Amino acid sequence: MDSEESKQTAQAGDLALLVGRDRKTFVLKLQPGVEIHTHRGIVSHDALIGMPWGHQLISHTGYPYSFFRPSTDDLVRDIKRTTQIVYPKDAGYILMKMGIAAGSQVIEAGSGSGGLTIIFARAVGSHGRVYSYDVREEVQTLARQNVEKLGLEGIVDFKLRDIKEGFDERGVDALFLDVHSPWYYLRQAHEALVGGGFLGCILPTMNQVIRLCEGLTKLDFGYVEVEELLLRSYKVVPARMRPMDRMIAHTGYLIFARALVPVKSK
Amino acid sequence: MDSEESKQTAQAGDLALLVGRDRKTFVLKLQPGVEIHTHRGIVSHDALIGMPWGHQLISHTGYPYSFFRPSTDDLVRDIKRTTQIVYPKDAGYILMKMGIAAGSQVIEAGSGSGGLTIIFARAVGSHGRVYSYDVREEVQTLARQNVEKLGLEGIVDFKLRDIKEGFDERGVDALFLDVHSPWYYLRQAHEALVGGGFLGCILPTMNQVIRLCEGLTKLDFGYVEVEELLLRSYKVVPARMRPMDRMIAHTGYLIFARALVPVKSK
Amino acid sequence: MDSEESKQTAQAGDLALLVGRDRKTFVLKLQPGVEIHTHRGIVSHDALIGMPWGHQLISHTGYPYSFFRPSTDDLVRDIKRTTQIVYPKDAGYILMKMGIAAGSQVIEAGSGSGGLTIIFARAVGSHGRVYSYDVREEVQTLARQNVEKLGLEGIVDFKLRDIKEGFDERGVDALFLDVHSPWYYLRQAHEALVGGGFLGCILPTMNQVIRLCEGLTKLDFGYVEVEELLLRSYKVVPARMRPMDRMIAHTGYLIFARALVPVKSK
Amino acid sequence: MDSEESKQTAQAGDLALLVGRDRKTFVLKLQPGVEIHTHRGIVSHDALIGMPWGHQLISHTGYPYSFFRPSTDDLVRDIKRTTQIVYPKDAGYILMKMGIAAGSQVIEAGSGSGGLTIIFARAVGSHGRVYSYDVREEVQTLARQNVEKLGLEGIVDFKLRDIKEGFDERGVDALFLDVHSPWYYLRQAHEALVGGGFLGCILPTMNQVIRLCEGLTKLDFGYVEVEELLLRSYKVVPARMRPMDRMIAHTGYLIFARALVPVKSK
Repeated sequence: MDSEESKQTAQAGDLALLVGRDRKTFVLKLQPGVEIHTHRGIVSHDALIGMPWGHQLISHTGYPYSFFRPSTDDLVRDIKRTTQIVYPKDAGYILMKMGIAAGSQVIEAGSGSGGLTIIFARAVGSHGRVYSYDVREEVQTLARQNVEKLGLEGIVDFKLRDIKEGFDERGVDALFLDVHSPWYYLRQAHEALVGGGFLGCILPTMNQVIRLCEGLTKLDFGYVEVEELLLRSYKVVPARMRPMDRMIAHTGYLIFARALVPVKSK
Repeated sequence: MDSEESKQTAQAGDLALLVGRDRKTFVLKLQPGVEIHTHRGIVSHDALIGMPWGHQLISHTGYPYSFFRPSTDDLVRDIKRTTQIVYPKDAGYILMKMGIAAGSQVIEAGSGSGGLTIIFARAVGSHGRVYSYDVREEVQTLARQNVEKLGLEGIVDFKLRDIKEGFDERGVDALFLDVHSPWYYLRQAHEALVGGGFLGCILPTMNQVIRLCEGLTKLDFGYVEVEELLLRSYKVVPARMRPMDRMIAHTGYLIFARALVPVKSK
Repeated sequence: MDSEESKQTAQAGDLALLVGRDRKTFVLKLQPGVEIHTHRGIVSHDALIGMPWGHQLISHTGYPYSFFRPSTDDLVRDIKRTTQIVYPKDAGYILMKMGIAAGSQVIEAGSGSGGLTIIFARAVGSHGRVYSYDVREEVQTLARQNVEKLGLEGIVDFKLRDIKEGFDERGVDALFLDVHSPWYYLRQAHEALVGGGFLGCILPTMNQVIRLCEGLTKLDFGYVEVEELLLRSYKVVPARMRPMDRMIAHTGYLIFARALVPVKSK
Repeated sequence: MDSEESKQTAQAGDLALLVGRDRKTFVLKLQPGVEIHTHRGIVSHDALIGMPWGHQLISHTGYPYSFFRPSTDDLVRDIKRTTQIVYPKDAGYILMKMGIAAGSQVIEAGSGSGGLTIIFARAVGSHGRVYSYDVREEVQTLARQNVEKLGLEGIVDFKLRDIKEGFDERGVDALFLDVHSPWYYLRQAHEALVGGGFLGCILPTMNQVIRLCEGLTKLDFGYVEVEELLLRSYKVVPARMRPMDRMIAHTGYLIFARALVPVKSK
C-alpha cells in the first residue's frame, strides 16, 4: 500500500468519527480487537481499520454510520466536560486575533475541560507548545485525559499552580486567561508575554468586562479590543432558505490586548 | 546571546509591525541597511534589528511607533490586494469548521490576493501544504508575491489552471472554493477531497447560496451547513461601555459540507 | 367617585391582566358575578372591580397575583391562535414604517388569528378603520372572536373573500399582506391604496422575498425596503449583566413599498 | 368633490412629502401662494394643492419628485434637531411594549427635539394626551416648534420644569424617561404612573443600564426588561439579495418596567 492510498484509509491509531443518521457522533481511536457499543448496535474497530474515509458502514443491527476523520470542532464537542466549552466561532477568532498558528508558544489558564487546550495544541502543532495552568487538580486531570485521548500530550505542558504566583515561562507569543477574575493576574501575564504579545480573555458579563478594561488601562497593555461574535445558522432547504428559528445569543465577550514595554527615560 | 533572549528581540529576516499613534500600520521584513519612509518620518531597519519586541521607537521626526511581531490578522490586512480579503472572523471559523490545523493538506481556488492563502499556510505550517489554483495569471502573481513577502512560499503550490479541468491532488483534507459560481466545480472538488473531507465556500448573495445548496444535495455531499457571523465591537471606555455605533453587517454566507462516498450495491 | 379616581381603579367592563409569580398571565374582561379558575386557585371578578390597578391580590389558595391593565403586547400574546402571531418588535416597526397611527385606514389580508388586527385596531382607534380579509371562514371566525373579546369590533370590518377578486376599499393609507404568496395580489393592493400609500409584507423565506421583489419592481411600487429586526434580551441582574443565552433568530423578513402613480404621457 | 375623492388629493393644510430621485426629502404644510425652493428647482404649493397623492411632479428645472403623504417616520426624520432622534425600530417597539395607542395618557422627559413627542402624539391621537417635560428652555422651544409644524399642538402639553420636583399628573398610562440619569427620578415617575403603568427608558451605555436596574429593584418597580433591537437592511436587487454592507450597530438599550403598588400589611 503506497502512502497516498494509506492516507485515504483509516489506520490503527487514527482518530475516527462515526456519525449516525440521527447526527449522534462517536469519536474513537482505532485499536485492533476493540469494539464500540453504540445505542444502535456494535461496530468493530477491525472493520474500520483499512476502510476508506467517508464511507458508510452498517452496525450489527443494520444501522448506517458515516465514517469520517474528525475536525477540531468534532473532537472538542466530544470530550468529557465539567465546564462550558469555548464555541468554534470564538475559538477560531481567538486563533486569528492572537496570531496563534503552527509553531506558536501559548499559555492558557485555567485548563478547563481541555477544549481550548486541544484547539491550541492542534493549531501550534509539534513545533509549538501549549502551557496549561490550573489550580484545581481534578479539573486538570480531566483536561489531561482529554488531551491524551487525542494524542496531543507531546505538545502540552500541564502545570498545577495558582497563577497568582506567576507563570514559569517568559517571552510567550500569546496568553489566554479563561478565568472568572482575570484582572487579578494581569501583572503575571505581562511578565510571561513577549513584548507586544497577545493577551486574550473571554467573559460572560459586562460587569467583568468593565473591571478588566479598568485593569488593562492601568497596566502596560494597549490596543485593547472588546468584541463579540453572533453566529446565525440557516435551515438548508434550497426552496425555502431562512435562518433557524432560534440561535445562541451569547457565549461571551472577547477581550484582546497587547503587552506594551514602557519607554524608560534615559 | 542565548536563544530565549534572541526570541525576545527582533532579528534580521523577521517580520515586524510598526503601529503609529494614529493606528496606521507598516509590516516590514527586517533587512540590514534598509530604511522605511513613513508619512511621519524615516525609520532605519538597523535600529530595529536587536530591539526588544513591544518597545516604542521614535522616527527621525520624533513620531512614536509601537514595534510588534505581526499576527496573522496584521499580515493579511497589510497585503496589496485587488479583491476583498476574507475577514478574520470568517477565516478563523473556516479553520475550525474545516479542521485546518498544523499538518493539513488544503486546496483553495481562486488564489485571490493571497489573504486566505496566507491564513491557510500559517495554519498548516511546514508539515502541511496549500495548493492554490487560479485561472487569472496577474491575480495569482500578486498572491504569490504576498506569500513570498511573508516567507511562506515553501508551504504553498500555486497552480495556474481553470478548475473546470479538475485538481491534480487526491485525498486532501479540505478544499475551499472562493469563486463566484462554486456549483460548477463540485464534481472536481469531490474528486480531490479525501472521503469525508471538508468543502467550504463563502458567497455574498442568498441567490448564490440557494444555487450551491441545490448542487450539493444532487452530488455526494452531506452535512451541509449555511452560516454567517456577525462581529460586534465595543468602545473601550470602562466608564461608558457600549457597542460601536456602526458595524459591518455582511461579509458573506459561509457554506460547509463533507464529501460522502456512496455505498456501492454489491 | 371622581373621574381621576375611577381611572385608577378597575371598572366592570375593563380588560385586566393577572400575572402570577411564575409569570403565567390571564387576560379577563371584568364582569360582576364571574370567577376565574387559575391553576393556583380561584379569583372572583367582584373582588377585582374597584381594586386599584397595580395592586397585588391573593387567590383563595393564597397565591399572589399582580393586577394590571394589559398592554397591546399582553393582549396579543393571550389570544387563542392557530397561526404564528406577529411579534411586538415587528408589529411596532410595521406601525412606524407604514405610518399607521390614530385615524388611519388600513387593510390587512389574511385575518390570521387576529393578532395584527388587534394591533392595527388599537393603533388607529375609533377615528380610524381596519378592513380584515380572509378566504378561510374558520380562521376569520377566530380572529373576530379575539377582536370582540377586546371590545374592538367597532373598528374592524371583517370580509370573507378571496383577495384575488380585489378589495372593496379605495384610497386606504396602508395595506398589509400577511399571506404566503403576496406577489399574486400586488395589482389588487395597488388599486386599494391611496397614491403613495404603504404596502407591507412579512415573509419567512428569502426565496419568497426574492419573488416579491421581482413582482414589486414590475408593477408601480417604489421605495422598496427589505429589513429584519433582531431582538436581544438581557438577564436583569445588575451585578452580572449579560444577554440571555438564547434568542429568537428569525421571525420574518419585513418588506415595505409605496404605491406609485405612473406619470401619463400627455 | 366628494369626500373619497378629497382624501386622494392633497388639500391646503395637509402635510406633504416630496422625494427626489436622489432620495432627498422635503416635508411641507401646503399653503396657497407659497413656494418651496429645493436644490433642484422651485415647486409651487398651488400646483400641489388638488394633486392626487402618489403622483410625480416636475420642478421648474425639470427635476422629478414623488409626492406623498408623510409617514410618522418621514416626519420625524425631517424635523430640525439638536439631539439624537429615537430610531423607528426603537420607537415602534416602545409603543408596543408600553401599550401606547389611541387614547393613552403619556408623560415624556425630556422633550429633546420633539421626535418622540411627535411619535407619541400621533399614536395617542386626539383622545389621548402627551405631557412633555424639559428643564432647558431652548430645547423645549424647538420641540414645540416641531410639534406645531405638524399640527399636533392640541395633543401635547409642554412643561418647563426640573423633573426632580415631580410631575403634575397622576395615573398616567406610560412614562418615558429619555434623560442621562433616569435613576434619579424613579420616585417621581412612580408617583405619576397608574398602578401597573409602564416606565420606559433608552440608554446608550451598559454602565447606565446597570445603575438604572439597581435603582428599579430598590423601588417598587417590577417586570423589568432590558432589550435591544438590531435592524438589518437588505439591498433590494432580486437577482442578488444580500444584506447591506454596513449597519447601525447600536442606538440604545431599552429598559421597561411596571410600577407596582406594595401590599400594605393590615
